[in-house]
Amino acid sequence: MATQTASSRSTPLAVEWVGGVDGFLKLIDQTRLPTEIVYLECRDVETVWEAIKMLRVRGAPAIGIAAAMGVVIGVRDVARLADAGAFFGKLRETTGYLRTSRPTAVNLFWALDRMERVAKESRESPSSAIAERLLHEAEAIRTEDRDMCAAIGRFGAALLPDRGGVLTHCNAGALATADFGTALSVLFHAHDAGKQIHAFVDETRPLLQGSRLTAWELQQRGVPSTLLCDNMAALVMRQGKVQAVVVGADRIASNGDAANKIGTYGVAVLAKAHGIPFYVAAPSSTFDLSLADGSGIPIEERDPKEVTHGFGRQTAPDGVSVYNPAFDVTPAELIAGLITEKGVLRPPYKDSIAETLD
Amino acid sequence: MATQTASSRSTPLAVEWVGGVDGFLKLIDQTRLPTEIVYLECRDVETVWEAIKMLRVRGAPAIGIAAAMGVVIGVRDVARLADAGAFFGKLRETTGYLRTSRPTAVNLFWALDRMERVAKESRESPSSAIAERLLHEAEAIRTEDRDMCAAIGRFGAALLPDRGGVLTHCNAGALATADFGTALSVLFHAHDAGKQIHAFVDETRPLLQGSRLTAWELQQRGVPSTLLCDNMAALVMRQGKVQAVVVGADRIASNGDAANKIGTYGVAVLAKAHGIPFYVAAPSSTFDLSLADGSGIPIEERDPKEVTHGFGRQTAPDGVSVYNPAFDVTPAELIAGLITEKGVLRPPYKDSIAETLD
Repeated sequence: MATQTASSRSTPLAVEWVGGVDGFLKLIDQTRLPTEIVYLECRDVETVWEAIKMLRVRGAPAIGIAAAMGVVIGVRDVARLADAGAFFGKLRETTGYLRTSRPTAVNLFWALDRMERVAKESRESPSSAIAERLLHEAEAIRTEDRDMCAAIGRFGAALLPDRGGVLTHCNAGALATADFGTALSVLFHAHDAGKQIHAFVDETRPLLQGSRLTAWELQQRGVPSTLLCDNMAALVMRQGKVQAVVVGADRIASNGDAANKIGTYGVAVLAKAHGIPFYVAAPSSTFDLSLADGSGIPIEERDPKEVTHGFGRQTAPDGVSVYNPAFDVTPAELIAGLITEKGVLRPPYKDSIAETLD
Repeated sequence: MATQTASSRSTPLAVEWVGGVDGFLKLIDQTRLPTEIVYLECRDVETVWEAIKMLRVRGAPAIGIAAAMGVVIGVRDVARLADAGAFFGKLRETTGYLRTSRPTAVNLFWALDRMERVAKESRESPSSAIAERLLHEAEAIRTEDRDMCAAIGRFGAALLPDRGGVLTHCNAGALATADFGTALSVLFHAHDAGKQIHAFVDETRPLLQGSRLTAWELQQRGVPSTLLCDNMAALVMRQGKVQAVVVGADRIASNGDAANKIGTYGVAVLAKAHGIPFYVAAPSSTFDLSLADGSGIPIEERDPKEVTHGFGRQTAPDGVSVYNPAFDVTPAELIAGLITEKGVLRPPYKDSIAETLD
């Protein structure tokens, strides 16, 4: 494990592979943002495991990519021995170990399953060739996610005005994905296409993903932006500074109801009241067609200390009762469009979702 | 100066006088809230001056009362000498000194002017009698404010349902006044009248007056309450938990447009969208009839560090652009009623305000 500090203003990638099979996994240590940009070079599986466990890499797609690359790191030394039994033993050991890094991350399991499947399909090849094949697959997982995010960005960018303010909430950015992100991909692509957009960034209490991550990503990519407390969004809308809202989603029901970070629903209501289109950007994998609508999505409550002891000190009285829901559900009727890698879905969503995802 | 720590769950007063002319001014040190309840006993003018300067006492009415009581402390020793020249010299010195404690606080000047006027009216009396008269006047300032807040509370309490949730934003509470506050007076009086209300408290970024002060006041007075991040208000409204919103105001224009802490306008829009009545509670001194509407109220911007370094450590990248407006203006059409000490004003406000304040 080695670290280095960089101050590049180019486009930083949350997760990438450097070199050939004997190379390394390079991560941005997201726990050090936004005050420090520290890259973590993972050359052993333990460092990958620790990075996932400690949220140095976060966001479902980014975790899946890191884990897939971790598999390559885990098996490459044994691959030189040309002993298939030893190789597959090491593969099982590696994937089993990586699965324990963040047991609730569905993408982690999906990526590890995919890597194991590819190895088994190649079982007649020499171990060293299988290791090469696994690196190729890990890169494919990364490239597919990157392409998906880019497609979301291109479809979404076309919806934005040539000049105007775009408000976003929480972090649906490149840090959580192979590149670009989902909601932020829309802003990045609009900016790169020469649209003069100005981003308004909700800080997003309680965990401040907006100020810690989104403001940083926009700054890194040179998109003009302004950080706000969540309760200031209404004022900038009323002042006419916001022409569109773009947010991400954790889960979208078959009628278009979209679950996302707490506060998203309020932003959607405010956008509606000010005649501002509200868009949700998410890959098609986010849609859960088993849900008729958003009422079936349980609202997880998190530790009250996130509210009362936000960032280093206590700001509420002892014993205070706190409600700390992790997310909320925005009803489909407040959503002007669902921006996916397959195109922009429009109301009525029951039909457009069924057609597109079939 | 002496301090004491108490853990009383009765109704704490921000500012009160204990004893006769030789007594002392007792303040809650608001800089120690919400983690500690520390009372400050002021027995010399320097301690009063420091308490106002350092925001240990805050809120226009509370500052006015503290300053008036500070005048008594300043002159009482000289009053025993029965030398009118020395007495009025000391009075001028005391009021002049106290005026420098917080030069932008209008109520401070108003209270000191009133104390000087009373002393001059009594100039034929012995100095000791004037000192008694000044204590009486300081108590009158406190009692008048208390009665005004109580009247607001009674008028407002009648508007609340017998059972239900009441959301408030920022701190318009007893800590800023002689007792009860304005918006919180409505909640306290409803609670004391046996209504089963549950308060929802916006934490109120960036300075967290909701979590630091309002949550504490409600807890002290036994009103069931739940603390929220500002961006959670929309969700609890949608969940049907909120039956009314009550907030304070800094300034109200002659058409009913009301300036209040940043975030108030957003809450008003959300309340409207959910069919929840939104009330503004404020004394008649808050109305500025020279303003035709709220567009003439300038929006002060405050230090970006309140947003980027809000909780004891930096939570946004260096060099980020920040918008930090101190308040916003809620248009009259979103306000269901203006709760004053003279009664509840209803739309059209141009008429009801003119009639009531004439």
